[in-house]
Amino acid sequence: MTEIAWQQKDLLSIADLSAAEIQLVLDTASSFREVSARPVKKVPTLRGKTVINLFFEPSTRTRSSFEIAEKRLSADSLNFSASSSGLVKGESLVDTALNLQAMAPDLIVIRHGHPGVPRMLAERVSAGVINAGDGAWGHPTQALLDAFTIREEKGKLEGLKVAMVGDIAHSRVVRSNIELLNTMGAEVTVAGPRTMMPVAVETLGVRAVYSLEEAIRGADVVMMLRVQLERHKKVMFPSVREYFQLFGLTRERLRSAKRDAIVMHPGPMNRGVEIASDVADGSRSVILEQVANGVAVRMAVLYLLSGARQEAGA
Amino acid sequence: MTEIAWQQKDLLSIADLSAAEIQLVLDTASSFREVSARPVKKVPTLRGKTVINLFFEPSTRTRSSFEIAEKRLSADSLNFSASSSGLVKGESLVDTALNLQAMAPDLIVIRHGHPGVPRMLAERVSAGVINAGDGAWGHPTQALLDAFTIREEKGKLEGLKVAMVGDIAHSRVVRSNIELLNTMGAEVTVAGPRTMMPVAVETLGVRAVYSLEEAIRGADVVMMLRVQLERHKKVMFPSVREYFQLFGLTRERLRSAKRDAIVMHPGPMNRGVEIASDVADGSRSVILEQVANGVAVRMAVLYLLSGARQEAGA
Amino acid sequence: MTEIAWQQKDLLSIADLSAAEIQLVLDTASSFREVSARPVKKVPTLRGKTVINLFFEPSTRTRSSFEIAEKRLSADSLNFSASSSGLVKGESLVDTALNLQAMAPDLIVIRHGHPGVPRMLAERVSAGVINAGDGAWGHPTQALLDAFTIREEKGKLEGLKVAMVGDIAHSRVVRSNIELLNTMGAEVTVAGPRTMMPVAVETLGVRAVYSLEEAIRGADVVMMLRVQLERHKKVMFPSVREYFQLFGLTRERLRSAKRDAIVMHPGPMNRGVEIASDVADGSRSVILEQVANGVAVRMAVLYLLSGARQEAGA
Repeated sequence: MTEIAWQQKDLLSIADLSAAEIQLVLDTASSFREVSARPVKKVPTLRGKTVINLFFEPSTRTRSSFEIAEKRLSADSLNFSASSSGLVKGESLVDTALNLQAMAPDLIVIRHGHPGVPRMLAERVSAGVINAGDGAWGHPTQALLDAFTIREEKGKLEGLKVAMVGDIAHSRVVRSNIELLNTMGAEVTVAGPRTMMPVAVETLGVRAVYSLEEAIRGADVVMMLRVQLERHKKVMFPSVREYFQLFGLTRERLRSAKRDAIVMHPGPMNRGVEIASDVADGSRSVILEQVANGVAVRMAVLYLLSGARQEAGA
Repeated sequence: MTEIAWQQKDLLSIADLSAAEIQLVLDTASSFREVSARPVKKVPTLRGKTVINLFFEPSTRTRSSFEIAEKRLSADSLNFSASSSGLVKGESLVDTALNLQAMAPDLIVIRHGHPGVPRMLAERVSAGVINAGDGAWGHPTQALLDAFTIREEKGKLEGLKVAMVGDIAHSRVVRSNIELLNTMGAEVTVAGPRTMMPVAVETLGVRAVYSLEEAIRGADVVMMLRVQLERHKKVMFPSVREYFQLFGLTRERLRSAKRDAIVMHPGPMNRGVEIASDVADGSRSVILEQVANGVAVRMAVLYLLSGARQEAGA
Repeated sequence: MTEIAWQQKDLLSIADLSAAEIQLVLDTASSFREVSARPVKKVPTLRGKTVINLFFEPSTRTRSSFEIAEKRLSADSLNFSASSSGLVKGESLVDTALNLQAMAPDLIVIRHGHPGVPRMLAERVSAGVINAGDGAWGHPTQALLDAFTIREEKGKLEGLKVAMVGDIAHSRVVRSNIELLNTMGAEVTVAGPRTMMPVAVETLGVRAVYSLEEAIRGADVVMMLRVQLERHKKVMFPSVREYFQLFGLTRERLRSAKRDAIVMHPGPMNRGVEIASDVADGSRSVILEQVANGVAVRMAVLYLLSGARQEAGA
């Protein structure tokens, strides 16, 4: 049983969280999980709280997950997208932050193309700030929903063998997941083409290999990463077909993982590129559970951050 | 009195509805009509239900009508537009559907440029799906609000003579209206330039003529259709002026309809093209009533679909 | 104590308001000010009211201020932006207005590039209309929030010396502020480069000078205006650096104002162009208070207009 109280104002990076805090988020998410299964999918928890969703990059999936979480908690949510709104016409991000703060939001959910922007924002505002993805590396709520999903399936995180396969260098979910899994005592192996592997990847505390088979051998969890076709197609590997032959997860290859291994993907999937369709839709796939759990985990984070602020203010 | 209970999970096409079901929607809409006239325009009917508005084509009018209907029913509504959100970056529509479903929406309102997409979605998700327009033909809630408006004015649908004039081949509202009016026992005549008439139009169960006068002679209801100037101007008829001379509804021409005939238009109107301004604003025009009734009809559809789902789940 | 009742259907221009009405808005805003400081930032005042935010020009700051105000009053708000929604495809603004009205909104907040559009809308709809900026001149809620901020700081408006410096000809906030300050008995001086000064500016009831120092000498309030760099850079003055040398507010220059003078800016600021960073962030700056007060003033306006309508309807 977790006994600690939540103290953090913000959720910026998994590296800021202790194992006990991660546990607390996951436990809290468990209790919110059933809200989305009710006929009346709504609790009054955040009534009268203002949440600003500040997306400088388009993200249907993450934004909608947060927005649904906010509405099911009865918060008032506002959406700003940089493109549609003329945000920051000649205004610095700091001024934008101060202006938002002046409108007295309780929480700000931010996605930005540059790493560190959420932290910069958090330092300037008294509102709680949630990093919904910054640049290619940080995406803490994705790591938390992945961990929640693994824990639901496996009952624990400690001691599990987790393989992550694909574009290790550019996927938004890799670093946060590694940090979380390391903190919780799981063992991570990453694999991908050399062109998609960051320099000195082992310093992140993982084993790095260059073959899919080697990565998933004996794994409890196989996380396939999205190949950003629009970005890489011609530069980093000769062809989609070749990528699939080398790093695509097929039913046959999955056999080298544990018999009860689960298959994950942060979406959106390229079927036939990083994952075969029958695996994506197969009985070991928990890809849609990840999406469903995302709402619960974000409800938990919104709830904990808003609660911490109330205590601090009282 | 309608005695049947609503059984349908989705509203995809008027062709799926029996006369009794159409009647039930219209009767339900009657009872919601007065909500929008109250000082407090809100009922708690859909509190805690999540409705996703998924618009792959821009549509201010239909989207706002649905959104107002959802809010007046106290639902939580989320808007996705394909353009603004980066929806489906390389993801198939089926995967988008499955992802949305994972977030446990109760209802999905979808507009898409290709016919059949709403049905494909409905087959994949347990949420109720409402077709808010697919391609050039289907727009069931428009047909229902038109029928509601006619019934309000004429007290019935059976036996009425309805003329539809204009771009029969490309108007989004034609097929749904024909299906509904045929089911309810009205008599439909369509008219338009030959270039705007679909091949074998009579197989839809209507009389087709090529003159405005002939179409509206003795009509109880005259529905004028929008000419999509941006699409047709140069291709299908020599000039806007000529179109108006041949197929524009003027006060004089309206005389050949019944004395108490009503004039309808799905909007947005091209004044001076398909309809003269004084007719659009005249005493026989119910064009703005159509808009007002649209909110009530959409409230009814949202209510019935959500109710059916509850029963199914209970 | 204000004793009058609010009678106006719309808020279109400060010129339509008496001193007593302005006072009433400011007094009402005072009572809403503390709502945004509560843990539960929400009052049920506008529950079941529909507010349409109709923005034909992008405006993150004004739109979000209104949207937050609406949500804190429990209204149902809908956002339309001309760009994202395909609004008015070939439809006249009058038809758009009539269509919106048919959906029975209680209030419409409109921003449009052409002056007079809000008034035209107000004449066509029974909903209350709030001008959120039309063209280069009118922006009544900005003037009201500026006045509110001055009154909070100075305890009164009457007899104060107010300097406005910068692009007098094109700033959206100038005319409304002059009208309001004149009505309330403040004394306004405007200053800016000759190329940014409207013809016959004195007919607005202000003193016009062409030097910053002269304008702010002895001022109680210094309002700096945004230079629209994107528009003017090369045309109206030789360089940003020269502009700052002549019309930028520095700490040194501020000394010629009263010792307790306050510094205002409608935002977004160009730091180092019209205002030095240390002044913008200094102890005399109330720039962020303006933003915070904007929410309270808009809550007051929404409340008063909706109340007036109820009385009228009763």
